[in-house]
Amino acid sequence: MPEKLQTPLIMVNFKTYLEATGRKAVELAEKAEKVNKETNVAVAVAPQFSDIAAVAKAVEIPVFAQHIDPITAGSHTGHVLADSVKEAGAVGTLVNHSERQLKLSEINKIIEIAREKGLVSVVCANNPQISTAVATLKPDIIAIEPPELIGTGIPVSKAKPEVVTDTIRLVRKVYPTVTVLCGAGISRGEDVAAALKLGTQGVLVASGVVKAKNPYNVLLEFAQEAIKAGELKT
Amino acid sequence: MPEKLQTPLIMVNFKTYLEATGRKAVELAEKAEKVNKETNVAVAVAPQFSDIAAVAKAVEIPVFAQHIDPITAGSHTGHVLADSVKEAGAVGTLVNHSERQLKLSEINKIIEIAREKGLVSVVCANNPQISTAVATLKPDIIAIEPPELIGTGIPVSKAKPEVVTDTIRLVRKVYPTVTVLCGAGISRGEDVAAALKLGTQGVLVASGVVKAKNPYNVLLEFAQEAIKAGELKT
Amino acid sequence: MPEKLQTPLIMVNFKTYLEATGRKAVELAEKAEKVNKETNVAVAVAPQFSDIAAVAKAVEIPVFAQHIDPITAGSHTGHVLADSVKEAGAVGTLVNHSERQLKLSEINKIIEIAREKGLVSVVCANNPQISTAVATLKPDIIAIEPPELIGTGIPVSKAKPEVVTDTIRLVRKVYPTVTVLCGAGISRGEDVAAALKLGTQGVLVASGVVKAKNPYNVLLEFAQEAIKAGELKT
Amino acid sequence: MPEKLQTPLIMVNFKTYLEATGRKAVELAEKAEKVNKETNVAVAVAPQFSDIAAVAKAVEIPVFAQHIDPITAGSHTGHVLADSVKEAGAVGTLVNHSERQLKLSEINKIIEIAREKGLVSVVCANNPQISTAVATLKPDIIAIEPPELIGTGIPVSKAKPEVVTDTIRLVRKVYPTVTVLCGAGISRGEDVAAALKLGTQGVLVASGVVKAKNPYNVLLEFAQEAIKAGELKT
Repeated sequence: MPEKLQTPLIMVNFKTYLEATGRKAVELAEKAEKVNKETNVAVAVAPQFSDIAAVAKAVEIPVFAQHIDPITAGSHTGHVLADSVKEAGAVGTLVNHSERQLKLSEINKIIEIAREKGLVSVVCANNPQISTAVATLKPDIIAIEPPELIGTGIPVSKAKPEVVTDTIRLVRKVYPTVTVLCGAGISRGEDVAAALKLGTQGVLVASGVVKAKNPYNVLLEFAQEAIKAGELKT
Repeated sequence: MPEKLQTPLIMVNFKTYLEATGRKAVELAEKAEKVNKETNVAVAVAPQFSDIAAVAKAVEIPVFAQHIDPITAGSHTGHVLADSVKEAGAVGTLVNHSERQLKLSEINKIIEIAREKGLVSVVCANNPQISTAVATLKPDIIAIEPPELIGTGIPVSKAKPEVVTDTIRLVRKVYPTVTVLCGAGISRGEDVAAALKLGTQGVLVASGVVKAKNPYNVLLEFAQEAIKAGELKT
Repeated sequence: MPEKLQTPLIMVNFKTYLEATGRKAVELAEKAEKVNKETNVAVAVAPQFSDIAAVAKAVEIPVFAQHIDPITAGSHTGHVLADSVKEAGAVGTLVNHSERQLKLSEINKIIEIAREKGLVSVVCANNPQISTAVATLKPDIIAIEPPELIGTGIPVSKAKPEVVTDTIRLVRKVYPTVTVLCGAGISRGEDVAAALKLGTQGVLVASGVVKAKNPYNVLLEFAQEAIKAGELKT
Repeated sequence: MPEKLQTPLIMVNFKTYLEATGRKAVELAEKAEKVNKETNVAVAVAPQFSDIAAVAKAVEIPVFAQHIDPITAGSHTGHVLADSVKEAGAVGTLVNHSERQLKLSEINKIIEIAREKGLVSVVCANNPQISTAVATLKPDIIAIEPPELIGTGIPVSKAKPEVVTDTIRLVRKVYPTVTVLCGAGISRGEDVAAALKLGTQGVLVASGVVKAKNPYNVLLEFAQEAIKAGELKT
């Protein structure tokens, strides 16, 4: 795990939800920071590109981009440069989210760029096989997200616990020190606890927090369950 | 032409040049604003997504995104939502730049989204045929950029004047009120004057300004030549 | 309309249905040919790439590719060269089907290549706006297919007749001699008749024929209704 | 190695070269077969989709597709179905060639489909890292092709021997029984010998054979050098 991040880690993907765009992105990040301060559980946020700067300025918790392109500085109109999100305040980036899937050579290149620029790479993978392939590329974090569960409210830790345990076993075999998160369908504190008990070091959540009536309460419950799960003593 | 923009217009595409990333994006935009204030010629800037907010806060000239995705709010990790760049301060967006080419159905959708959200659409096109196809979709602005000239320092207005005049004639036939810019290879004041004399209403420039030793001087020369070309009385 | 094709035209897209793959592609094409011989109504087929040669050898009706790539001969592993499908016996190609959508510049290039190689271009378009944009590129045929109706059995001619009539009016304005087909949801003879009455010159069908219990019967009914619709006297 | 293929293997990628399209694809495949019959060295060919059937009918050496899509039978207009190339006579397929790069999840899916359908998967990879990631997905064959050497006439076995040996070492660690080919820049018999001596089990060639004045002579030299390299006794 990169020094700048502790585990267990709750990472909130803001996607392109209006509830987490612009001013509301900052407000949501502030709620996440509040939970972090109150519980000491690590909470990170991944707002849209245009919101990274404002969010990073407003809060002290880690801010991630949702994607960067496999490019270096130059003639790449409309693309996302690692240097750009870094200077805006991001400490890392999601890579290959199931809603923004990439070519294998692009994933390889992005992980290299992230490493070189000092950005934490969180590579998403759909299944144990893909997770293992990703692990050989040595990203900082692998996030397992079966795409068929995203947004369903059915947590992978409950619906497919073997996907989680298989993945952890396989990826650790090729890259023992990688951090593993699990995502898709996480919406309650018990889902977080279950994910940690299966051996992950945190969760990647989106609608379960962003679309919640009270995101602060949800995140607080997540953090409290994470503490109970015993990975962290406050 | 949208009310918020006057012509002739000098639009500066920051691409993903390091010379126009982060703090330097703001500085370059301030130089563009200075030229606008001194000459009264319209100058717009298109920084990277992560820089839109800071640039828009720093200057009063129009700020554009370099791209938006054909999506509405929702589950679109790593994509660019119109609402997001708008709230960050963009008044419009480039679409289909030759370095970020799009499917026809995506261009159609993005123009619709831009119209609905009150963003100015600047659709790039490589040749007269594609420009005409784009014109039927009624974007606010069409920017003609033969990709083989981009970054060469050879202006389309000189190398291929007939591409410019053909395009203007053809696009005006299907959409008489569309604004036409021309780009690719613009690096000197005389290139801007030539572009305006051929009937365009401005230029789309990138490396000619961003990579110049003194971008302020180049933009000032552009603006002065634009004035001489008689389209604007200060 | 290209000389080699008469109207009304019934074009059958084999997609990648197993019912129309390999030996079964040839059998289905033979049924289409039988209907053509018995009714004199033009029937064309668009099998998969690997089946073009065998189908074109087996039948005398026009055979189309489902796609070609915007490339000329060279280093393009895994792509589809116009010369290749032509030598295999195709007389034309579908372009930009909603299941294989293309960049605007690619559509432009493919239409040019098809023209140069003597292949009939049948460009698919989702709505009147896109159809009009396509028409400016002067393909031989435009096929209107609202993607939301594909495979539903609800014909566009019934569900959205105004889409058809609007499209015909708009595309004829920019390219008066273009042939217009309509597709999506065509499964009964009356759908064909309705399409022709709205002013199209034929239909593009897929599952309605390929997945039918008796494709010959369905095609025969289509042809008979086309005749009744008065566009063709046997 | 799949039973149906022996090593060392010389695989000829026809790309979309006119010299290997249509009738000429068959003629070139016949030359390849002649070399196989005379030397007993395995030679395989990968023609374009439309030529697979004719080539597979004309020769007895293994025929490969250059690509298949990650789809099963259904509504996938313009895509390449595994069943289709198989029924046409292909025994396998290239996957992820540097000219047809794929998303990681697509590579995973295509390897699964190939396995299920009994097709040999030959997955191309640009560097040792990507090769290793691919190896975890257990394809039948991995072909290492540094894209910067493709078509140069500079063989990877000479320019970057460490890329070859590194790759073999790394991929065998995660998947000991995988067959490794090397490609890019192979144009002379000595390149083939060098590739085999570095530990590969064959080569993937394209322009070196297809664009040669006398492809038969080139292939014969390849085969003879392969024999000398001692991997095969005739």
